[in-house]
Amino acid sequence: MPPLFRRVALIGKYQPVAAGGTARSAVDTLDHIAHFLMDQGCEVVLEAETAANTGLPHYPVADVDGIGRECDLGLVVGGDGTMLGIARRLARHGTPLIGINQGRLGFITDIPLDGFAAILPPMLHGEYEEESRPLMRAHVVRDGEVVFEALAMNDVVVNRGATSGMVELRVEVGGQLLANQRADGLIVASPTGSTAYALSAGGPMLHPSIPGWVLVPIAPHTLSNRPIVLSDAMEVAIEIVSGRDVSANFDMQSLASLLHGDRIHVTRSDYCVRFLHPRGWNYFATLRKKLRWNEGGS
Amino acid sequence: MPPLFRRVALIGKYQPVAAGGTARSAVDTLDHIAHFLMDQGCEVVLEAETAANTGLPHYPVADVDGIGRECDLGLVVGGDGTMLGIARRLARHGTPLIGINQGRLGFITDIPLDGFAAILPPMLHGEYEEESRPLMRAHVVRDGEVVFEALAMNDVVVNRGATSGMVELRVEVGGQLLANQRADGLIVASPTGSTAYALSAGGPMLHPSIPGWVLVPIAPHTLSNRPIVLSDAMEVAIEIVSGRDVSANFDMQSLASLLHGDRIHVTRSDYCVRFLHPRGWNYFATLRKKLRWNEGGS
Amino acid sequence: MPPLFRRVALIGKYQPVAAGGTARSAVDTLDHIAHFLMDQGCEVVLEAETAANTGLPHYPVADVDGIGRECDLGLVVGGDGTMLGIARRLARHGTPLIGINQGRLGFITDIPLDGFAAILPPMLHGEYEEESRPLMRAHVVRDGEVVFEALAMNDVVVNRGATSGMVELRVEVGGQLLANQRADGLIVASPTGSTAYALSAGGPMLHPSIPGWVLVPIAPHTLSNRPIVLSDAMEVAIEIVSGRDVSANFDMQSLASLLHGDRIHVTRSDYCVRFLHPRGWNYFATLRKKLRWNEGGS
Amino acid sequence: MPPLFRRVALIGKYQPVAAGGTARSAVDTLDHIAHFLMDQGCEVVLEAETAANTGLPHYPVADVDGIGRECDLGLVVGGDGTMLGIARRLARHGTPLIGINQGRLGFITDIPLDGFAAILPPMLHGEYEEESRPLMRAHVVRDGEVVFEALAMNDVVVNRGATSGMVELRVEVGGQLLANQRADGLIVASPTGSTAYALSAGGPMLHPSIPGWVLVPIAPHTLSNRPIVLSDAMEVAIEIVSGRDVSANFDMQSLASLLHGDRIHVTRSDYCVRFLHPRGWNYFATLRKKLRWNEGGS
Repeated sequence: MPPLFRRVALIGKYQPVAAGGTARSAVDTLDHIAHFLMDQGCEVVLEAETAANTGLPHYPVADVDGIGRECDLGLVVGGDGTMLGIARRLARHGTPLIGINQGRLGFITDIPLDGFAAILPPMLHGEYEEESRPLMRAHVVRDGEVVFEALAMNDVVVNRGATSGMVELRVEVGGQLLANQRADGLIVASPTGSTAYALSAGGPMLHPSIPGWVLVPIAPHTLSNRPIVLSDAMEVAIEIVSGRDVSANFDMQSLASLLHGDRIHVTRSDYCVRFLHPRGWNYFATLRKKLRWNEGGS
Repeated sequence: MPPLFRRVALIGKYQPVAAGGTARSAVDTLDHIAHFLMDQGCEVVLEAETAANTGLPHYPVADVDGIGRECDLGLVVGGDGTMLGIARRLARHGTPLIGINQGRLGFITDIPLDGFAAILPPMLHGEYEEESRPLMRAHVVRDGEVVFEALAMNDVVVNRGATSGMVELRVEVGGQLLANQRADGLIVASPTGSTAYALSAGGPMLHPSIPGWVLVPIAPHTLSNRPIVLSDAMEVAIEIVSGRDVSANFDMQSLASLLHGDRIHVTRSDYCVRFLHPRGWNYFATLRKKLRWNEGGS
Repeated sequence: MPPLFRRVALIGKYQPVAAGGTARSAVDTLDHIAHFLMDQGCEVVLEAETAANTGLPHYPVADVDGIGRECDLGLVVGGDGTMLGIARRLARHGTPLIGINQGRLGFITDIPLDGFAAILPPMLHGEYEEESRPLMRAHVVRDGEVVFEALAMNDVVVNRGATSGMVELRVEVGGQLLANQRADGLIVASPTGSTAYALSAGGPMLHPSIPGWVLVPIAPHTLSNRPIVLSDAMEVAIEIVSGRDVSANFDMQSLASLLHGDRIHVTRSDYCVRFLHPRGWNYFATLRKKLRWNEGGS
Repeated sequence: MPPLFRRVALIGKYQPVAAGGTARSAVDTLDHIAHFLMDQGCEVVLEAETAANTGLPHYPVADVDGIGRECDLGLVVGGDGTMLGIARRLARHGTPLIGINQGRLGFITDIPLDGFAAILPPMLHGEYEEESRPLMRAHVVRDGEVVFEALAMNDVVVNRGATSGMVELRVEVGGQLLANQRADGLIVASPTGSTAYALSAGGPMLHPSIPGWVLVPIAPHTLSNRPIVLSDAMEVAIEIVSGRDVSANFDMQSLASLLHGDRIHVTRSDYCVRFLHPRGWNYFATLRKKLRWNEGGS
């Protein structure tokens, strides 16, 4: 029986590991997985930068938009960061994604490299759990003009410069004032991002089924400025009131040197990312493993 | 023009302030408000316990279910605690509620006693903001039998006895294991309850539009056991694994002496409470005032 | 060469594991360690309750005060809880203590059962790291009378009853008002206790060299009621202002049913506990291991 | 009777309020206080930058070292930030300091401008509470060379660049590894600084009598990386392991562009700052006021 996903794009760690090119083993790994997919009856397409970084010949190559148009599935080999980068760019095409992780398993990339040969075949034939994660859409307005636009899966972060004091931010939600906050910064995190930076800054976890995001102030001056979970149907607008060298980060895409009066607007994107997991996959089991619950430690 | 709400139930502080009966001034206050309502063209019905506690004569009296069946509006004079108690019991009837507060304004009871004469009239004629808050439904199962049932607006709390060590709880969400937690206890809080006890225990605030609740562990042994926000479409089940003198509290209704193996199930109730606020009322303004944001303090 | 510590008291898990007596293996373990000590040239004395619980014959028996008067060293086989219980009672005698742990290593009991044969001999001959931990002295005053006295190594905790709301406490430090606090309770923790319950409640760790203790409110109503570290030269007095079923716990010794007006006074005890660790022992390494730092997890 | 403090240095807000010079009222205020001091029998010396910024004539002028050598007291008119800046520079001279605050009272500058005429005279004659606050001494070593040195009253902060990810820091205490931490940064705060930035980042308060400091990680990746209080007799060394645009801040003095391998060493300075407060002054009362305890809010 042919696989459900006929044409599979293979995407490797996005940046070369170091000067001098990708490590030999990473190249071999991708080649190995490619052959495995072909043995399963799939066509393999190599993502263009992956092809350039690895120098792997013999495979058709496509850029991200080409993959979105022509492939049935994206198979990402790397960590959560690699996955987020490609997922954001594929989101408009609705291409489903599977993640194989070479190191410690991530929240999203949950198939161990040494187990893929057993785990992938049923998934390729339709035996999987699917979850859909919405993206955040952000744009920055200066003097009435949009000067920056970005999509983010994890979070939008506004923060102070490295050698300056607090930033003051005016935060509006759904057109209403929430608060003027003085802090190191402010995180707007999606459920996906709630287990990343926002968790370190004291935020709660949001189950992926929550249609909302959480605002987490970073080191707020007012101790009662606590995290707040808002519906993602309400626009969040953040205006720079004061502070030096303020910057905004959309996942890891940065806009530095924000000016007083600049406004960052965050809304729910129309696009969702589709992640496929092995049958029996379970969000809570991932949490337990990643956060080392139930291990008897402190 | 006659008021939109013709028959208004008046409900006072639910318990006598102290032995010897309700303070004189509280009685006068209720009488004063009752006359005001009649001047506005409303019929006034006195809630039965309020009538008993105050000894106010000359008004028709109804118990809570009678109010639910026959009145168009409940007017509560007291704090958030008084309001929650009556709201829970009126929820099945869908009776809208307005709160007049004699002391420091609450999150819900937001009309100051000395301002009601100006604020109430437009509300009685339909000029108001309405918000709907869902209730939590909880039941406790022991040896396959339901031994306790309750509704809660704020939270369901399971906690250890006063002189005993940690409790161990097995927490399941939507039928899946979330974690085994050792802690002083666990709070399941609605958006309404997220600004009450759960906030003190380190939880985030949930905007009332979030269709979810937050699980907040109290002094958890494992430091990565952080608050998690879940969809209220998923049942939360909490099983007592170990611990002495464990009890469960549903708002302030208590069930003491839980046994190992007892399970507390929490689901979303079909009932919602309807709160009416003055035109221009705004959830965020209430937060700012209650949490003393933007006051320049630490 | 004879050991530095000639007469060694052997103390096992303080309470029988379960009805029916201590597990066979625990008895064998103690017997095995006793023989090992005798082979090293030590006399072995069995602590009286350990003797009663295990039924081990053939050893001289002494109660805790007898051990304090006559033994050079106490060897505790168990976890941190067992150690704290015996350490508190031996403190007035200045008897040094070594801990062998059968399960997961503790903060204090840091010699693994399967390694003691290699680790103990040099320690018995004087090759060890010593650390001294001060005790807390607490007494409860009611109507001018001292109604309870206790020593504690970890913490003094005042908390609310299981089914009641917050307790209100008036806290004085060195005779001056610190604050009136409404909370689930208040912890006064020593450096030793700072890595136990106080850490779960949000307190900082205190290095054992800090001559102080930390006050950690449990789920405080006022969000700015944060932990505060005080010199242990200042008395801490906690008065019960309001609340039902309030209790005080001194390590795990409890005094229930405190009355309004009762005052708990905490001062530094003149007694210190002396713990001996293997050469090269290091407080920070213990922290890293217990708190799972540097493991790559979240 | 002549005042105990004969020669008093007057120090105003350290930087001009805005281009175009100090506001008229600030100049008048200083002039007014100067005359008041002379009426009390003091000689008044104007700090050099204060003199330059205000343009006040008719007073002897001295730079900070001159003040240290020749004056008996420094009177600072401004907020805590102004006071910290001058206190750090006067510390080597042991000159006591009094703070008059024009705005909201600070932790240190606790005499209100409109009350100084009643409060100062007894203080000038020796009726005061004195507290002594130690300074931190920090130096940065690169390739074996000291490339930066500074004193700090509040804190030493190492943090990531504004648009970069986490920094990784190797932290050693007293020559022993504490941990490798990945975080936004790390704060080493004195008791004075524990109520400033460190408190916002989740640290405890340290009473000024504690001979220690607290390490507070900022948004640490590992959730069990909690604040730890250390003796100030132990050197803290922080090595930059990875991260871009890392900087170090000593109070508000900054050293940007730290390199991997750079080490920041923090030890207790031999210098202490002496603050004088009105009789009856009380650290805890200041805490209560600044943190708005006991006000009935959340």
